[in-house]
Amino acid sequence: MKKYNFNAGPCVLPKPAIESAIEAIRDFDNTGIGILEISHRTPGWERIMKETADLWRELLHIPDNYKVLFLGGGASTQFFAVPANLMKKKAAYLKTGTWANKAIKEAKFYGDVEIVASSEDKNYSYIPKGYTIPEDADYFHITSNNTIFGTEMHEDIDSPVPLVADMSSDIMSRPVDISKYGIIYGGAQKNVGPAGVAFVIVREDLLGQLDRPLQSMVDYRSHISDTEKNRSMFNTPPVFSIFVMHETLKWLKELGGVEVMHRMNKEKAALLYDEIDRNTLFVGTAAKEDRSIMNVCFVMSDEHKDKESAFLKFATERGMIGIKGHRSVGGFRASIYNACPREAVEALVKCMQDFEKQV
Amino acid sequence: MKKYNFNAGPCVLPKPAIESAIEAIRDFDNTGIGILEISHRTPGWERIMKETADLWRELLHIPDNYKVLFLGGGASTQFFAVPANLMKKKAAYLKTGTWANKAIKEAKFYGDVEIVASSEDKNYSYIPKGYTIPEDADYFHITSNNTIFGTEMHEDIDSPVPLVADMSSDIMSRPVDISKYGIIYGGAQKNVGPAGVAFVIVREDLLGQLDRPLQSMVDYRSHISDTEKNRSMFNTPPVFSIFVMHETLKWLKELGGVEVMHRMNKEKAALLYDEIDRNTLFVGTAAKEDRSIMNVCFVMSDEHKDKESAFLKFATERGMIGIKGHRSVGGFRASIYNACPREAVEALVKCMQDFEKQV
Repeated sequence: MKKYNFNAGPCVLPKPAIESAIEAIRDFDNTGIGILEISHRTPGWERIMKETADLWRELLHIPDNYKVLFLGGGASTQFFAVPANLMKKKAAYLKTGTWANKAIKEAKFYGDVEIVASSEDKNYSYIPKGYTIPEDADYFHITSNNTIFGTEMHEDIDSPVPLVADMSSDIMSRPVDISKYGIIYGGAQKNVGPAGVAFVIVREDLLGQLDRPLQSMVDYRSHISDTEKNRSMFNTPPVFSIFVMHETLKWLKELGGVEVMHRMNKEKAALLYDEIDRNTLFVGTAAKEDRSIMNVCFVMSDEHKDKESAFLKFATERGMIGIKGHRSVGGFRASIYNACPREAVEALVKCMQDFEKQV
Repeated sequence: MKKYNFNAGPCVLPKPAIESAIEAIRDFDNTGIGILEISHRTPGWERIMKETADLWRELLHIPDNYKVLFLGGGASTQFFAVPANLMKKKAAYLKTGTWANKAIKEAKFYGDVEIVASSEDKNYSYIPKGYTIPEDADYFHITSNNTIFGTEMHEDIDSPVPLVADMSSDIMSRPVDISKYGIIYGGAQKNVGPAGVAFVIVREDLLGQLDRPLQSMVDYRSHISDTEKNRSMFNTPPVFSIFVMHETLKWLKELGGVEVMHRMNKEKAALLYDEIDRNTLFVGTAAKEDRSIMNVCFVMSDEHKDKESAFLKFATERGMIGIKGHRSVGGFRASIYNACPREAVEALVKCMQDFEKQV
């Protein structure tokens, strides 16, 4: 039976990236040695590192005064690395869900955190609006897409202080005006690769402004070398995860880039949200204007609450994988990242319709 | 042409582990989904996590009061995580090379560092002996194998304070009496897997003794859960790197375990050191009693210094990869980790003999 992968991350990756990964494990760059066994100091690997950064630059139109880093330890490590590198006294945070809260917790080690606005009052089902970003904050932190609650900030906001975004689950899903941000970071394991590597896009002039001594691995400057080929090579990088990222971005470029992907993502999301709105069995959990095009959260409608496990079983029997909702929301969540084919979304929609017929 | 991989890390891995990795990328655990695309919260993955920890326990006879963690960020992250978790006021370090020095540098963020002994006077070509470990230190840190300088501590030492060892490049190469250690850590990318994951074996009662607030990712306790299946899952783990570690340890177990591997490693190392000592073209750089069985460093003898590049070319043409020495030592370095087959060492020895004949 055909499987449709709606995992929230790690998640479905482009088939060509998977095939390249397998080829590279057998033999990397005609060296006679596989990608898992090469030295990260070989010219072939230095080329991949540079090309990967170049693909980031090209796909997101990253200006020259930003550096792109690939680091181990996940986005969770960045939760404290960001304030360690940027916070003098106070940072402002938008409280939009579980991951924002984790970022807030780690920031408190380095100074005061001002919660500018929160959507906790309605279980993080919307993105707060109409707030004022304090001009005395060292930076303003947002979680642009909330994987667990299925809400998303669809546009780049203006901020009077450096804007920092955790884009773990929507990076490369839409064009981004990088110049509006100070730092963009995230884990790779949704749109840009497998687990094991985090990306950090940082405006270089923001660094080195603090008196705080920083451990070498925490200091972003350790990972920025003068040459692109040695960047992110302060220590042994997560070679294979970066290689799969390289192949994933190549696939994205060949497909037409982030702009084309954004159109496809909106179409996929519309297919699914339209069915949720049409089908009386289901109800979307996120405020309509803030619905994520990456993570689609829905529950059974009130009169059909008893059918939740029946639908999960029904869908699982039809090859749907990973659609059980996070315990914080319940119900269902379909993560339809870049590499999730339209065919998978169509299959899920059909599954929802078939279930409706048999109820 | 057959290639022989002597890379210092990342480096050669067992063939069966590579084949399993490829199979798992195609389909993990009969899920219809590949290992790069599965959720780390699926039962199949939780089983792999548990089995991997169990393999560590079995192979190294790890007592129950120690936890085994698999973390991102490399051993370089542990350079500061160790003092962050253990240092109250002062730690003692053995200064045996480049990596020891990096560990010392990061420890200074957390308190005083006492250098108990150093081999810097002779370019780290030996392991200091006859030193006294201060009883008022919070721990004593050693680098059991010095990858760059080719020296190794062949036995577990006694320490009046918790012993901490960076075993990045000799873990699983010999039996270790874990009970003599407080923490053993290292990067996987030599003997136990590809780049992207670090291991930490920690005696649990050493944790939580400090007033220092710790960032969640830095606090080892975050990664220790009550259940083995959720351990090292505080954030998304480097799934694939851990999977290859799992397969590498399975291979080691099938081969007979660490005790058998130790015998094989000593034999391989003896083959190569014997040739270095016999062949007048070459000289070993490490003190004989401290010679590493993992990283074999040698240079051209004084009267043949001019032939260095000629031998490198000669060996490269015969399929030897990664034998150029680190710039700190010069000459050559053959890293002959667990997965390096005896055949490769024999080929290198023959290469040295053939070069001798044509000189």
